[in-house]
Amino acid sequence: MRNVQASERATAVEGPVKVITRSLGFSTSGDADLVNITASVGSLLEESGLAAGSATIFVPGATGALTTLEFEPGVVADFRRLFDRLVPATEEYDHNKTHPDLNGHAHVRSGLLGPSLVVPFVDGVLCLGKWQEISFVCFDNRPRERTVIVQFMGVAQ
Amino acid sequence: MRNVQASERATAVEGPVKVITRSLGFSTSGDADLVNITASVGSLLEESGLAAGSATIFVPGATGALTTLEFEPGVVADFRRLFDRLVPATEEYDHNKTHPDLNGHAHVRSGLLGPSLVVPFVDGVLCLGKWQEISFVCFDNRPRERTVIVQFMGVAQ
Amino acid sequence: MRNVQASERATAVEGPVKVITRSLGFSTSGDADLVNITASVGSLLEESGLAAGSATIFVPGATGALTTLEFEPGVVADFRRLFDRLVPATEEYDHNKTHPDLNGHAHVRSGLLGPSLVVPFVDGVLCLGKWQEISFVCFDNRPRERTVIVQFMGVAQ
Repeated sequence: MRNVQASERATAVEGPVKVITRSLGFSTSGDADLVNITASVGSLLEESGLAAGSATIFVPGATGALTTLEFEPGVVADFRRLFDRLVPATEEYDHNKTHPDLNGHAHVRSGLLGPSLVVPFVDGVLCLGKWQEISFVCFDNRPRERTVIVQFMGVAQ
Repeated sequence: MRNVQASERATAVEGPVKVITRSLGFSTSGDADLVNITASVGSLLEESGLAAGSATIFVPGATGALTTLEFEPGVVADFRRLFDRLVPATEEYDHNKTHPDLNGHAHVRSGLLGPSLVVPFVDGVLCLGKWQEISFVCFDNRPRERTVIVQFMGVAQ
Repeated sequence: MRNVQASERATAVEGPVKVITRSLGFSTSGDADLVNITASVGSLLEESGLAAGSATIFVPGATGALTTLEFEPGVVADFRRLFDRLVPATEEYDHNKTHPDLNGHAHVRSGLLGPSLVVPFVDGVLCLGKWQEISFVCFDNRPRERTVIVQFMGVAQ
């Protein structure tokens, strides 16, 4: 068995719950175009006035997905290349037989990576690592206008 | 830097929190059988009487997983085929050396896709895209009776 | 259409929300070293005194990830091998051209699996399957001291 130690420190807050739902909008160029939305989510959290709770970030669509990455050009390029290798656009997709947009690979890639991400926050700050950024991936095969839902649930300061 | 715009509109509700935990049950045929549970989750949300908050959907087991997909026959077939390609049943799995059920690939696939999905809701409606459906995937290699936990947390109307 | 049945039973609690944020610390050996943190998360839940709600488990870093697995040696070995096959350390990674730590594969693997996991709980117990364990994966290529955030949100007993 691994020795797993719990922190002494517990941040505990209690009160009426507040649920604040916002959205972010931006343009994407498609083909696994990655967008770093960390600063925008952080600003919305500040505006929310919440002290502790969690941020649910959600893509309301079937050709985009979310994860976290160290958002430097190398990792961004490597992550895009991963999907070219695992789920190539050049495979045959049944979706493309009946849908002329030919983005079958975008649907499959999005399903694999997933549309939701939950990030806890404490003292009004997201609990992200120093080099960890909230990353939206547009898997569609064309430029899009995108919306991402950002919902904060927690207790105010 | 990408131009990311925050919505003007913020839906904010406050009050005592309500946590309502339900479950859904259904039969699956195995081998990446996909089940669209969106309508059922929506009905439970309506019954909950909650206005704003989030739905946590969770598979209490190690051979099923959750994601969202455009649930048309082409994408469903493409998504199943993805796992046949990435995590073939015909590979060698250490699990199968000690477990006679021979479903090692089901365990690995489920771990890759993940057991939890969180979907925010506002005004009593899930924030899903028009063509986006909550999809349970049964990765086991035989028919199963499945249970999925659906927990709503938020504020009542 | 599949016959999906909702449970008769609904567990519903209401009151002031409590948000309790803790962390777990442990050593990892890298190279997809897996750590079962289920018992530790369960102990923190017990200490929280919460009855119903959800546990958000989050990796604050870009080279670790979370999922659930049946944590027996076979599945653990199979899951590690999956990443050696899908995202080999021996591929070329742009990250490695500019970063001497040569862990490009760790970044890509972590982004694919994802940093967050949300597990509902009822009556003070996590809604996990009998053979399902919360599993941290250290994808880095060297031993590390790791921290995982565990945040409980819900209603007290």
